[in-house]
Amino acid sequence: MTEYKIALLGFGGVNRALAQLVAEKNDVWAQELGFTLKIVGVSDIFLGSVIGKEGIDPKALVAVPATKGAFSSLDNGCAEPANETVIRFTGADIVAEATFTNPVDGEPANTFCRWALEKGVSVVTTNKGPVALHSAALKKLAASTGAAFEFEGAVMSGTPVIRMAQETLAGSEITGFKGILNGTSNFILSSMQAGLDFGSALAKAQDLGYAEADPTADVEGHDVRLKVVILANELLGAKLTPNDVCCEGISKITATDVENAARQDSRWKLIGSAQRSASGTVTASVSPQLLQNSDALAGVSGATNAVTFETNLLGPITVVGAGAGRIETAYALLSDIISIHKNKTKRAI
Amino acid sequence: MTEYKIALLGFGGVNRALAQLVAEKNDVWAQELGFTLKIVGVSDIFLGSVIGKEGIDPKALVAVPATKGAFSSLDNGCAEPANETVIRFTGADIVAEATFTNPVDGEPANTFCRWALEKGVSVVTTNKGPVALHSAALKKLAASTGAAFEFEGAVMSGTPVIRMAQETLAGSEITGFKGILNGTSNFILSSMQAGLDFGSALAKAQDLGYAEADPTADVEGHDVRLKVVILANELLGAKLTPNDVCCEGISKITATDVENAARQDSRWKLIGSAQRSASGTVTASVSPQLLQNSDALAGVSGATNAVTFETNLLGPITVVGAGAGRIETAYALLSDIISIHKNKTKRAI
Repeated sequence: MTEYKIALLGFGGVNRALAQLVAEKNDVWAQELGFTLKIVGVSDIFLGSVIGKEGIDPKALVAVPATKGAFSSLDNGCAEPANETVIRFTGADIVAEATFTNPVDGEPANTFCRWALEKGVSVVTTNKGPVALHSAALKKLAASTGAAFEFEGAVMSGTPVIRMAQETLAGSEITGFKGILNGTSNFILSSMQAGLDFGSALAKAQDLGYAEADPTADVEGHDVRLKVVILANELLGAKLTPNDVCCEGISKITATDVENAARQDSRWKLIGSAQRSASGTVTASVSPQLLQNSDALAGVSGATNAVTFETNLLGPITVVGAGAGRIETAYALLSDIISIHKNKTKRAI
Repeated sequence: MTEYKIALLGFGGVNRALAQLVAEKNDVWAQELGFTLKIVGVSDIFLGSVIGKEGIDPKALVAVPATKGAFSSLDNGCAEPANETVIRFTGADIVAEATFTNPVDGEPANTFCRWALEKGVSVVTTNKGPVALHSAALKKLAASTGAAFEFEGAVMSGTPVIRMAQETLAGSEITGFKGILNGTSNFILSSMQAGLDFGSALAKAQDLGYAEADPTADVEGHDVRLKVVILANELLGAKLTPNDVCCEGISKITATDVENAARQDSRWKLIGSAQRSASGTVTASVSPQLLQNSDALAGVSGATNAVTFETNLLGPITVVGAGAGRIETAYALLSDIISIHKNKTKRAI
């Protein structure tokens, strides 16, 4: 039985959910996936850090309250983060990086990824920053040390999008995609369809915890733009940066716009998309678009996400699923580890 | 560069489209997939057979008219089928089996698959018969000779369903599925939504070539039942036969039913589904169901297919795409060959 030692960077909702899965599922994974996970270190900017090369009890981790310095209550815990130690000196095989997204330079997550990959330690991440801004360099670094760099959770949480396109749609000749890639803005548009104006719909999203106090990244399309960059670069071989993508959000959509759309058998959706031309040029954009109700994306409502891949051989293929959620995003990390395990196992046969 | 020698069993729309892809795409595949395909034999009950161990020109094959015995016009061609010779004595690495579906005993396709697998020749098939009725035995035979048995195209043509569930959703704990798995019946129900009665909608489907002269298998749910058996056995570990699945079609749905549904913000859909209980028992059924318009499957209209996987860790994941089509189904065969190639390549690293 393979046991992977994992180090958790960031201990917000996602890695806490991963620790919970480790506590509950290791026996199932042993049987069905052929491996188990052992947590050997955790570092979080708010909670502090804890190291246990022989394994940290995942149940004890999950029980730690979300209070400043709380890891100091654990054996070998302290109130300060210790990112470098946890990455470099715990003997981890895999680092699960789930710190906050920095859309400007991807730091400090990018440095965390580099520290791991330089040592040949694989990285699984749900963080859009390093993937959107530094994916090519990080993949090159990973290849040079034989480590893996996997990031299914950077787009649509655990709903398979990147791996679906690259593995199960291989050879179908993907020429573009369009997607509903932000749950908050889709929730707001769906609430407006149900009769609210933009302000009330936003307030409702904030009440329900879908939208941040500062909703700019969600409603102005900046979050979608990072995801479009990731998908365009991974699926269409582009080399885009966020500045290459025209970006318009939904804050100018009015109740009247939504009513007019309904009269035309249509709905407004915030769409992130990219297309590759015959010459190989990739153009990408984020903008509100009026979709006919017959469009596979038009019926995707609430906080659900979806993406339609345009392919030469198969026509359009749409996948609809969760775009966020603690367990759903922790599953993305698990799916990355499953992929690492499969590749390793197949190499060893 | 790897070259796979393939033998084509059946030369209707699907394998003819595969030959067309071989004619057009081998250079692209060499570059992007790492292999090319060479057709070394074809056998068809109507057209006859042709053998060419050094490779048959795929353009010449595509140009053969659909007339009885037409293969006799080719070099080394004859007017009679030669299934056993094409499978056993052409040196094929892979047999692409796309003969007609026999829902009673899966023959003669099942025997064709056995002939190939016994010799260690891999099989890729789009044929529901052998998969629904003999999958366990054929997989066991394949394992015993080191051959592969792949059948993505048996459900929803090339739209990734089986491979998506088994690979990109591994570890998500699939507990069930429900799907729109027959394009003809979905086209009829969509046409009834638009105002036609059942008879007129069926006639329209027949005019457009979606429905056969005898539409029983499509409208009475028998086609869906075979697909439900395949998915339940593959994804939920069931051991179902078609007789284990209650099956009701759409022929009793009236225009009034469809109008009443619309008034309840709902739509009738022919749903194939299966669920695994906590004790491991799998129950499956095919029946018309009233779906709320908010259901991800309700908006899937026309001949399009879709399936929603129910998972413990990710919630519902829906994939929407083509359920039929010459090129789309030929792509399913290609995707099976890509899978065989990946597994072989990884083993060789």
